[in-house]
Amino acid sequence: MKSDLDQLMQDYELDAILITWPAQHNPAMFYLTGGVHLTNADLVKKRGSEPVLFHYPMERDEAARTGMATRNLGEYKMGELLRQTNGNPLQADILRYQKMLTDVGLTEGRLGLYGKIDAGEAYSVFSGLQEALPGLTILGQMGDSILLQAMATKSEDEIERMRRIGRTTIEVVSLVADFLTGHATRGEILIKENGSPLTIGDVKNKINLWLAERGAENPEGTIFAIGRDAGVPHSSGNPQDYLRLGQTIIFDIFPCEAGGGYYYDFTRTWCLGYATDEVQKIYADVLAVYKQVMSDLKADSLCREYQKLACEIFEDLGHPTIQGNPQTENGYVHSLGHGLGLHIHEYPRISMAAGIEDRLVPGSVVTIEPGLYYPERGLGVRLEDTVWVRPDGQMEILAEYPLDLVLPMRSI
Amino acid sequence: MKSDLDQLMQDYELDAILITWPAQHNPAMFYLTGGVHLTNADLVKKRGSEPVLFHYPMERDEAARTGMATRNLGEYKMGELLRQTNGNPLQADILRYQKMLTDVGLTEGRLGLYGKIDAGEAYSVFSGLQEALPGLTILGQMGDSILLQAMATKSEDEIERMRRIGRTTIEVVSLVADFLTGHATRGEILIKENGSPLTIGDVKNKINLWLAERGAENPEGTIFAIGRDAGVPHSSGNPQDYLRLGQTIIFDIFPCEAGGGYYYDFTRTWCLGYATDEVQKIYADVLAVYKQVMSDLKADSLCREYQKLACEIFEDLGHPTIQGNPQTENGYVHSLGHGLGLHIHEYPRISMAAGIEDRLVPGSVVTIEPGLYYPERGLGVRLEDTVWVRPDGQMEILAEYPLDLVLPMRSI
Repeated sequence: MKSDLDQLMQDYELDAILITWPAQHNPAMFYLTGGVHLTNADLVKKRGSEPVLFHYPMERDEAARTGMATRNLGEYKMGELLRQTNGNPLQADILRYQKMLTDVGLTEGRLGLYGKIDAGEAYSVFSGLQEALPGLTILGQMGDSILLQAMATKSEDEIERMRRIGRTTIEVVSLVADFLTGHATRGEILIKENGSPLTIGDVKNKINLWLAERGAENPEGTIFAIGRDAGVPHSSGNPQDYLRLGQTIIFDIFPCEAGGGYYYDFTRTWCLGYATDEVQKIYADVLAVYKQVMSDLKADSLCREYQKLACEIFEDLGHPTIQGNPQTENGYVHSLGHGLGLHIHEYPRISMAAGIEDRLVPGSVVTIEPGLYYPERGLGVRLEDTVWVRPDGQMEILAEYPLDLVLPMRSI
Repeated sequence: MKSDLDQLMQDYELDAILITWPAQHNPAMFYLTGGVHLTNADLVKKRGSEPVLFHYPMERDEAARTGMATRNLGEYKMGELLRQTNGNPLQADILRYQKMLTDVGLTEGRLGLYGKIDAGEAYSVFSGLQEALPGLTILGQMGDSILLQAMATKSEDEIERMRRIGRTTIEVVSLVADFLTGHATRGEILIKENGSPLTIGDVKNKINLWLAERGAENPEGTIFAIGRDAGVPHSSGNPQDYLRLGQTIIFDIFPCEAGGGYYYDFTRTWCLGYATDEVQKIYADVLAVYKQVMSDLKADSLCREYQKLACEIFEDLGHPTIQGNPQTENGYVHSLGHGLGLHIHEYPRISMAAGIEDRLVPGSVVTIEPGLYYPERGLGVRLEDTVWVRPDGQMEILAEYPLDLVLPMRSI
């Protein structure tokens, strides 16, 4: 949680953190500012002190809205800095950071660096700043970011935001189910009122519309994939494809609050009208793993154990898994789930990859998403819910929805 | 244009460029891949060769959709690299890049780095890679990115995409005008059918909905600011504010194609019902600058001249400007416009800031957006259109819309 930041900075021997640039679609900045509309800003937090937000003159009102201590970047006179550096914007920017950090008393110690910006700019500006301030050690904490560690447990108000986006997700999912099952069919194909086939593109337009109506965004898109595409876990679905009865549809929806805020993540697999015995069997196997894992989840346990459990059950049921063959593209081919919050993928990771010792703890929010994929057989099945480990150690799915495979068509 | 890339790489003595991570909401990767759904990928383009796209196994279908040469990152066996580096993800990632670049024959020469990722990761991974491959010089080209330079002129198919998002923008703007003027009023306040006041939040929800219906996104939000907020150029407007007759509303809308593609940028200032003499006068001054600049625009001219012209006219009309007083927060307080494309701000920049010698050339797409701001008087006025310099040197507004200040209320 945010309140862990000072302790985490202490653990990692960081004297301060610097977060660069926009407050939206930039989880590090969103986390500390709450997502106001700042297009460019810098935030400095020293250990044990409140953060200071550096903003441009035109965005002073938005900056003030955070309630933080603010400083106006106009005072650093970029025009003058450019003249001092013979019009070299890189050197001028390095000089600006040097002055800013000097002003807040940060010319030595260890500084952690965050924020989503251009890789080339980050590399060149902060290499230059490192040279300009040799007493300071600039650190990019790949893979063990203290912000990601703070984010790994959620406060009650973060859960409230996630619950709200979860409810929106479920509303949209049930609108989609209703929309699909209300269509007429011609042979195996769903058709629109004008007689032309309904396409995945049509469905995705509706999804976007219904999310937007509810103030949600889906910056990462939506997976709505049918048949062979459902058998390729991250295929997002071909907009031209028709909706056909009896084929597996993987519907994986992961919207966030407008402005790039908190996410929800949810998957169902549907067959319209009917499901073949082959699909029923695969679905039953995924459901068995889903249920076993859900009932086994326990606070303070090692996440990798659940991935191990999922692989064992799937192998007992005769499916290849990435545990048996890391290169397999058939069977169970991904990890069981992941933390969720301001990123689609956060801590803890439910994976057996080397070095991953993440634990499920009170405050964790994770997805549980077992699946089976057989692209050559034209099918895939995945079930996913988002689970919160409550302070009392109980598990809670943040937005409940039926797990049914077959959606009966109302016209048949 | 994209076809200039090899020449630009030659001019900047770059042997190759490396673009990191997602293909959506990451302009550099979108530019070369066209915006397919890749959550993590790396693209390497050597000078004079076609690009190679490194993708994860699960995203092989999406990667194939680009039509590019692809390589599967699964072949780099991250699990093994993690073991080799004692579970250190930073060192494992550096090793992966080292192997990838070695595989495509890039262990010496000059490599330009692009892509929107975490600043700390970029700094630490590429500092490490620089150490691991001392024969290679890694360059982040802040402020003179060759990609931004290539993007500074648009091809006909890029213009077609921008024209389409422009048309969507105009459709939504006229829906908003219609929506507002169709409301009843109580005193000076617009009221909804249920008798409660219409708020800016209500209007913004409609804008989001109407954009989404048309397959557009507004990842940067929308400015819809009334009264004093209109007087603060980048205030995005307070969702709780009521819509009042006679107050200036700055409506600045800058949506992009779904997935973080091409942008359009457009502003109108409206007064509902009537405008005071004071506002009419300010509006007339902004309109005068808008018209003079639009009629003066000429291919192959220096952009800074138009900012100079705008400042001169405004000062002649008695308004403070940032040319006279760089710190002013009253009068004309920003630059006249900017290039537009996959970013909200691209080349050329229409600014007099030191070192900016950008030119308007055939293929340029720029915004022209003069404005006047008097927050203490509770008003602001800005007019903005997006202009393409056609190959024949003629100017074309990509989506036309009336400039009217007053929107008559249908109920009055």
